Amino acid sequence: MNRPLRYAMVGGGPGAFIGAVHRMAAALDGSMQLVAGAFSSSAEKSAEAGRDLFLDPDRVYASWKEMIEKEAVRTEDRIDFVSIVTPNFLHHPVAMAALEAGFHVVCDKPMTMTVEESEELCRTVASTGRVFALTHNYTGYPMVKQAKHLVQSGAIGEVRKIVVEYPQGWLSTLLEATGQKQAAWRSDPARAGVSSALGDIGTHCENLVHYVTGLEMEEMFADLGTVVEGRALEDDASILIHYKGGARGILYCSQISAGEENDLTIRVYGSKAGLEWKQENPNYVRVKSSDEPEKVYKRGNGYLHSSAQGATRIPSGHPEGFVEAFANIYLEAGRAMRAVDAGQPISDADHPTAQDGARGIHFIHTALESSNKRSWVDASYSPPE
Amino acid sequence: MNRPLRYAMVGGGPGAFIGAVHRMAAALDGSMQLVAGAFSSSAEKSAEAGRDLFLDPDRVYASWKEMIEKEAVRTEDRIDFVSIVTPNFLHHPVAMAALEAGFHVVCDKPMTMTVEESEELCRTVASTGRVFALTHNYTGYPMVKQAKHLVQSGAIGEVRKIVVEYPQGWLSTLLEATGQKQAAWRSDPARAGVSSALGDIGTHCENLVHYVTGLEMEEMFADLGTVVEGRALEDDASILIHYKGGARGILYCSQISAGEENDLTIRVYGSKAGLEWKQENPNYVRVKSSDEPEKVYKRGNGYLHSSAQGATRIPSGHPEGFVEAFANIYLEAGRAMRAVDAGQPISDADHPTAQDGARGIHFIHTALESSNKRSWVDASYSPPE
Amino acid sequence: MNRPLRYAMVGGGPGAFIGAVHRMAAALDGSMQLVAGAFSSSAEKSAEAGRDLFLDPDRVYASWKEMIEKEAVRTEDRIDFVSIVTPNFLHHPVAMAALEAGFHVVCDKPMTMTVEESEELCRTVASTGRVFALTHNYTGYPMVKQAKHLVQSGAIGEVRKIVVEYPQGWLSTLLEATGQKQAAWRSDPARAGVSSALGDIGTHCENLVHYVTGLEMEEMFADLGTVVEGRALEDDASILIHYKGGARGILYCSQISAGEENDLTIRVYGSKAGLEWKQENPNYVRVKSSDEPEKVYKRGNGYLHSSAQGATRIPSGHPEGFVEAFANIYLEAGRAMRAVDAGQPISDADHPTAQDGARGIHFIHTALESSNKRSWVDASYSPPE
Amino acid sequence: MNRPLRYAMVGGGPGAFIGAVHRMAAALDGSMQLVAGAFSSSAEKSAEAGRDLFLDPDRVYASWKEMIEKEAVRTEDRIDFVSIVTPNFLHHPVAMAALEAGFHVVCDKPMTMTVEESEELCRTVASTGRVFALTHNYTGYPMVKQAKHLVQSGAIGEVRKIVVEYPQGWLSTLLEATGQKQAAWRSDPARAGVSSALGDIGTHCENLVHYVTGLEMEEMFADLGTVVEGRALEDDASILIHYKGGARGILYCSQISAGEENDLTIRVYGSKAGLEWKQENPNYVRVKSSDEPEKVYKRGNGYLHSSAQGATRIPSGHPEGFVEAFANIYLEAGRAMRAVDAGQPISDADHPTAQDGARGIHFIHTALESSNKRSWVDASYSPPE
Repeated sequence: MNRPLRYAMVGGGPGAFIGAVHRMAAALDGSMQLVAGAFSSSAEKSAEAGRDLFLDPDRVYASWKEMIEKEAVRTEDRIDFVSIVTPNFLHHPVAMAALEAGFHVVCDKPMTMTVEESEELCRTVASTGRVFALTHNYTGYPMVKQAKHLVQSGAIGEVRKIVVEYPQGWLSTLLEATGQKQAAWRSDPARAGVSSALGDIGTHCENLVHYVTGLEMEEMFADLGTVVEGRALEDDASILIHYKGGARGILYCSQISAGEENDLTIRVYGSKAGLEWKQENPNYVRVKSSDEPEKVYKRGNGYLHSSAQGATRIPSGHPEGFVEAFANIYLEAGRAMRAVDAGQPISDADHPTAQDGARGIHFIHTALESSNKRSWVDASYSPPE
Repeated sequence: MNRPLRYAMVGGGPGAFIGAVHRMAAALDGSMQLVAGAFSSSAEKSAEAGRDLFLDPDRVYASWKEMIEKEAVRTEDRIDFVSIVTPNFLHHPVAMAALEAGFHVVCDKPMTMTVEESEELCRTVASTGRVFALTHNYTGYPMVKQAKHLVQSGAIGEVRKIVVEYPQGWLSTLLEATGQKQAAWRSDPARAGVSSALGDIGTHCENLVHYVTGLEMEEMFADLGTVVEGRALEDDASILIHYKGGARGILYCSQISAGEENDLTIRVYGSKAGLEWKQENPNYVRVKSSDEPEKVYKRGNGYLHSSAQGATRIPSGHPEGFVEAFANIYLEAGRAMRAVDAGQPISDADHPTAQDGARGIHFIHTALESSNKRSWVDASYSPPE
Repeated sequence: MNRPLRYAMVGGGPGAFIGAVHRMAAALDGSMQLVAGAFSSSAEKSAEAGRDLFLDPDRVYASWKEMIEKEAVRTEDRIDFVSIVTPNFLHHPVAMAALEAGFHVVCDKPMTMTVEESEELCRTVASTGRVFALTHNYTGYPMVKQAKHLVQSGAIGEVRKIVVEYPQGWLSTLLEATGQKQAAWRSDPARAGVSSALGDIGTHCENLVHYVTGLEMEEMFADLGTVVEGRALEDDASILIHYKGGARGILYCSQISAGEENDLTIRVYGSKAGLEWKQENPNYVRVKSSDEPEKVYKRGNGYLHSSAQGATRIPSGHPEGFVEAFANIYLEAGRAMRAVDAGQPISDADHPTAQDGARGIHFIHTALESSNKRSWVDASYSPPE
Repeated sequence: MNRPLRYAMVGGGPGAFIGAVHRMAAALDGSMQLVAGAFSSSAEKSAEAGRDLFLDPDRVYASWKEMIEKEAVRTEDRIDFVSIVTPNFLHHPVAMAALEAGFHVVCDKPMTMTVEESEELCRTVASTGRVFALTHNYTGYPMVKQAKHLVQSGAIGEVRKIVVEYPQGWLSTLLEATGQKQAAWRSDPARAGVSSALGDIGTHCENLVHYVTGLEMEEMFADLGTVVEGRALEDDASILIHYKGGARGILYCSQISAGEENDLTIRVYGSKAGLEWKQENPNYVRVKSSDEPEKVYKRGNGYLHSSAQGATRIPSGHPEGFVEAFANIYLEAGRAMRAVDAGQPISDADHPTAQDGARGIHFIHTALESSNKRSWVDASYSPPE
């Protein structure tokens, strides 16, 4: 297919944050083109966004239902995929409709509101044969891919301990009461679901551990808290995890760690060495052992694994960041779409899937159960293939 | 103008590095569209690049002369500007032709081969009234803008000492002898000009100091060296500078600092405090004084100056990098172009100009003169307005 | 008292580690003098140590009992205090005997084997009126004192979340099976007590939180693990804590975090800001908020609190380390001893006490109880005054 | 000699800084004992210092001349060495007198006021056969020894470029005018000599390069400046150096780099790799190359060279600092003294010598000459053996 992929966006209108990130990620490599959208539940705001994005007004819609209906019947310049960047409660219905209309889907996380919805989505992806990519964007960082390679190639030995954390401070006050749009929907059960911190950032922790180590959870003990008075959902979560095979884990995420920005950090300790990656300075992976000097792997160098080298755009020492990592999810999703559309599905597409999404939703609900019961609970889970 | 700006690229074909960066920078914000190009002096390679970029084959040219000639006579879908990403020796002729054909220009640095060429270009920019933006991309980093604000608002007092350095190690061996394309042209006098290290990275140092402090040089003592045997141009330069008004400076750049990637660093010490910015971790500016704790300013926060806040796309803690800074040059250039084309030129466009380019070329030649004479030389210079 | 304080050491013979640290700490400021010792349970090794330390052979003993007995009856050059640096199981009997013989005591941690012993020791300190200082040495770091001041003066607001961690990797293999002396006793229940990781490093975490924040625990959930096969005691512990007043905590310590050295770190998040201190780079405290740049407080500067300034020996920028912090415990203990001996006990001596020791022993036993029960347990405790 | 070495101190009375450091350094390992002193040119202040240090009043003197005279005729408890910690102008006379009286000497830097004095001192050391150790204390850091090993064993290849810097900010104001004692003498030509920044910190840079690389200077270009109005001596110096064999260097030291504390840093780039050591975080050496991950060597580990391991007192991860490095100079000087006194001089004592001191004095005077002439000058020099 010698043309850019065409896509439509649902959500991402005025005041949104993540929609603009998706658009930059899709635009970065010149291989995707935004051609349509339903950017807001307000027709006026949707139209305004369309104008700002230089879109054909005929393809800017007042509702996602109308958009999918009308785009589905276009022929020559039909969209290839739908990008879903709405508040959480819309992910499931939009994704289902898009898949059933024959479109591929890129969807923000957490994937759905309930475990049932997430499993239904897995099955629909399978039955339609469409590509579904979930934007657990941190796995798009080249040095996360290097970390995964180091762990899975045995460089640090058998995994024994994992510490993953995602402290933020932006909800240290009751920001949602001020009308700030991001805070408002993320802490509103009707739009965000049963969880705030876990859904917004805890699932990133869970997914990152799974991506890097491949480990599955066995049991979990969670302690959720709502620290800021008046908040409807939890804003701080500390979780102890036993993984299958014996590794021990600590996972915590927090929206009330005042002064922290997005300090997502993963440390994996094996029988031979430990490694560390930090999102706020993401171009490095550190490997520590007592036998030799600490090694700092740096993005863009020839000594890295091919998965890390392949996910890089510019030479070492010129920092890449969040948008580039995000764009890697789009690139891999696009590569899978082109393959599927050519009748040659690929097996090595390196993007999070509907199964990853289901795992995340199960994680949220299991943590809630444990915290409510104040006890260890079974955390094992296999999403439908 | 309710459409993306349209541009053509000269250079940036297979094997090039900086062309792809320019394309990502222009694409990032969705406000510019690549529609034409002369990507290589080989017609075949140019066509290949055009195909990879999904361009209309009719607008992919075998030479830049043909391109400018043919694009100049288009009407409805005419390009707005030309992006020049060739080896140095072509910057001047392409830029002159593009300006004279009525196009705006974005051009890589160093701007020209000689001081005369650079001054001619300044005058042509003035006479044509076109926008000319030079990609001294490091000034596009938000925290460099914050550093500029801190210095120029007096937060560190009167500037006394400046240390700027740009160590790289990639030319620690005679890489140009292996056929590596980047090394080959950058160390070839016919294509790079009289200088390698100074032209490629030293001018970034010079420009960064001027941008942040506004200071002009008075005299300079340079010690250039060619460390790797068989190399035609200098690969290491140490320069002492006296600025007008009394500040003292050290500027060094090196391509043989083995193991260094792109560790561009600027430190400015004033009568009250000192500040530091490092390109490899660019989302921070540090201000140190003996009277209070060191302050670490972080990109994306509300306490920053509007110039730093305005140059940011995503929230604090999600790192931005090289491409985003580069894109800021394009954004500002684009803003200026739209204003000029609307008959309302703006005075606050924040991108490097032809005058900045002339200053850089003069800097290179003055350093060579000093090193050859082994003495202090007059370094004062005012480019034509 | 115009002379150095005189002391005797129990333990610290050939192959020991912490004894030498105590001797350096006591020597650093020239105000204490080692004059006697029972350095080993082997008479020969004790004598060897005495010779290496240039001691009078008459005051080098084959057993601590003999030492206390004979030193107690000296008159003119009698020791002022006993420094106890033995494996854990001897702390209690030696300390009891020394106090009852009228000596002040400096003792390594954990203080005793059981809660009962620790409470008995508290009461004996009170009844004898002697000074008892426990070497929770990390509280001797100047910047820990600054952190304490910042928290307790309200600079970060009301404390909401505490994360304290102490990962080490030195027991990643079954080192105790090789005969390595430190590993052997620390993982031997007969000499170390009921715990390895908690006793050796977990109590430092617990003490550090208490010192910096003043908070008391309310309930605790612990998950202890023995990761290395064949080990008798736990080598990894993850603990969730609810503090009185509502703060939430995570405390973890580990001896199997391969590649880690002594990366003790405390982060305290309040309603206004968060702070961080790291033992491996101990001359700094970082305070982060979203309202202003991160502040890095640096040891040795005039803007610090008097407690931090007073605990410093050399100017800022010349790093102080572990020994200097340790010496601060000795200095404060010595100051208290001189006051008591002058009949003027002081109330502001800044060293850990027997009560701190009892709190630590209670912490260990409570964590064991919780881990065994796999449930939250009451963690509140008040040691005898 | 089964006793601690005995020493007397000249200087280091009330208000002094470096005297206390010397005393801590000598005390740290329990192998040296301060027994006498002439701490001030004021008899009263000297006596006060003696009392604070618990010295026998009979051995506390009102002048260094009296001290050397009287100590020289003692027999049984005679001092072994003299430690000189006065302002610069007294180093030479006191050292000469001490050596001639048969004492070993530890002396602060810069060694003398003139090249002639320094050469006379070299010859006197040789003729008396006494040990003379100059406290270029930074060479006492274990990781500086590791850096030396890495360079001299060829790990980074042939040395090509050296950047050494020592920025301080403490003289950003005219502190000497306020009566601050340290500032007063260090910027007073009568007591400090011809130089302030070069003598106080520049010589440390020069010595550190020589220690780590073994290179000798060939020619030098210096640019000295007096930035703060009213100051008598230079407070900022930038120097370019050509070393014998072709390596190129930048050396700068500054007392007006506002906000800097003691940020002494050395970077050495070879044909294969580069290395970096920073005094403010001294427990690490970083080695960078493009062929493999950056390696961070950490103090206290078994993979280090024996010279680095031997200079360490405590395990890795427990930071050592300035005093410990300083104490290593004393330890090595003491080891040499014991050997000489036993009639078995050693050749591997690892402390700076009188020749190092002479090299430093020559460096200062050469830099002044170059700066005055505004030209390159011959910098080659061989001190008398």
